[in-house]
Amino acid sequence: MTTKYFVQALEEEFKQQQYGNNPVELYEPIRYLMSLGGKRMRPLMTLMATALFTDDWQKAIKSATAVEVFHNFTLMHDNIMDNAPLRRGKPTVHAKWNNNTAILSGDVMLVQAYELMMYVEDTQLRKALVRFNKTAAEVCEGQQLDMNFETRDNVTEAEYIEMIKLKTSVLLGFALELGGIIGGASEKSCAHLYDMGICIGLGFQLKDDLLDVYGDPEKFGKQVGGDIISNKKTFMLIEAIDKATGQTQQDLNRWLEAKTFDPIEKVNAVRAIYDQLGIRQLAEAKINDYFDKAFDLLNTLKVEEERKATLRAFAEILIDREV
Amino acid sequence: MTTKYFVQALEEEFKQQQYGNNPVELYEPIRYLMSLGGKRMRPLMTLMATALFTDDWQKAIKSATAVEVFHNFTLMHDNIMDNAPLRRGKPTVHAKWNNNTAILSGDVMLVQAYELMMYVEDTQLRKALVRFNKTAAEVCEGQQLDMNFETRDNVTEAEYIEMIKLKTSVLLGFALELGGIIGGASEKSCAHLYDMGICIGLGFQLKDDLLDVYGDPEKFGKQVGGDIISNKKTFMLIEAIDKATGQTQQDLNRWLEAKTFDPIEKVNAVRAIYDQLGIRQLAEAKINDYFDKAFDLLNTLKVEEERKATLRAFAEILIDREV
Repeated sequence: MTTKYFVQALEEEFKQQQYGNNPVELYEPIRYLMSLGGKRMRPLMTLMATALFTDDWQKAIKSATAVEVFHNFTLMHDNIMDNAPLRRGKPTVHAKWNNNTAILSGDVMLVQAYELMMYVEDTQLRKALVRFNKTAAEVCEGQQLDMNFETRDNVTEAEYIEMIKLKTSVLLGFALELGGIIGGASEKSCAHLYDMGICIGLGFQLKDDLLDVYGDPEKFGKQVGGDIISNKKTFMLIEAIDKATGQTQQDLNRWLEAKTFDPIEKVNAVRAIYDQLGIRQLAEAKINDYFDKAFDLLNTLKVEEERKATLRAFAEILIDREV
Repeated sequence: MTTKYFVQALEEEFKQQQYGNNPVELYEPIRYLMSLGGKRMRPLMTLMATALFTDDWQKAIKSATAVEVFHNFTLMHDNIMDNAPLRRGKPTVHAKWNNNTAILSGDVMLVQAYELMMYVEDTQLRKALVRFNKTAAEVCEGQQLDMNFETRDNVTEAEYIEMIKLKTSVLLGFALELGGIIGGASEKSCAHLYDMGICIGLGFQLKDDLLDVYGDPEKFGKQVGGDIISNKKTFMLIEAIDKATGQTQQDLNRWLEAKTFDPIEKVNAVRAIYDQLGIRQLAEAKINDYFDKAFDLLNTLKVEEERKATLRAFAEILIDREV
């Protein structure tokens, strides 16, 4: 089974998914946001995890889409909070409509994610929902921490890792675990899958941070250096603040405190400081660490080796991605 | 069993309920809003419905609080959308903190409502959740319709009733139905309870509209006439617009179109028009109709008569309430 089959099955499913009609003001924004597409990596991970344990991975499709609908609910609300005008080059829901619409449509999306979770069979329903509830609350906690960090000077690396774990990784962990639950995996295998998803999520987010600084502007699709411009306390900036001394430290602080600056000049200057301090290598090593751990967990999973190929290939694509 | 026991059990439960601690910015607003109190009528209805079918109504307490937490989630988000500064005389969450806090804390509250629903036993879990999901989506639909009606001139009585059914009544219907489900009631009895809750909800909301115009300012606790001042298209205004002719119609239209006016003068003038058109009697008759239907449904419920006394007394209190 190659990734292609899972992707096709998911696209079919999303194409025919109904989100409701009346009142149109409530449901149109949901259709709009879901139609903007994306990698659909979360439901893909659910299907791939189910396929580790059973050939009947199709039975996981509806519940897999719950993870994607939940993810898009968080986008709809986060975009309000973060004042983000664009999503995949298109206006965000609150920008296209208004804040109230984005709040209420988002609420219904969260309910719809729960509706899709009801496709999990009776024998696994409680387990799946208990884990989903915990994950959903943690994702909100991660978003709150992310907002808190904006106005704090002293964010540590450990705090940053905890924040991205909650905001991003736990949902990837849940996506794999849900696949395991539906596939009938043991408690231990489910826990393994969850941990694997966490590691993939942490590596994925750190790679995102890295691409924000070192990505190819041609391929990246969004402004390179956005995190530098906004002084976002990513792993890279936290490490740079920690490692910089003397003139480098003074230069970095000057850029962090500058109220008016040329954005391109600031991005280039801070990137040069990162280069000087070896931050790129540090970030790459950290990313590789997390993905290595993910592969270790996959290796120890008690499943025939040939069944692991798709998930392994998928993780490798995530490591090597340039966008 | 009298209402007092249910109220005490619920207050105990709410007192010891944990909503989470970290990050404090996320969970403090939940504690704050839940501590503002209220009649707790929704979880009360769940307990009373369970007690119709079993003496072990205590087993419904945790899930009953899910209905109250859900109700408070809708308040937290609706208050943002409606720009409401006060709730029970205290600042609303978005007013005390900010919109982002109210959005995100509200999201977590919705998740916590689902967490509390997990206290429903395995054999009834799917049924309870399917009904909860449907109710939750409908409550959002009702809020959207309510917002839509603000900018529409031609809201019909039927549309208004449908809106308050979705925004308010379905949750009261679900509160009773959930009690039935947990109490082991038959499908038919559960449907009966749901319909009864719908009727109570419609009567309750129309009574709310009536009190907004005719309530005793001393007892009412909030500004009397708020709906008149804002031209809210309630059952009463819709009926008045429909019935007014000649000079009365001209007077009513003048008040509806007035951009600047003395609020007390407008409230008194529109109330006088309602008096002239017999709108109060019309509303009271409609309210009695809904409560009569609720009592009819209670009467036909296949349960020993003495078990029905508490729920009947509770509905009577709702009819007679002056606040």
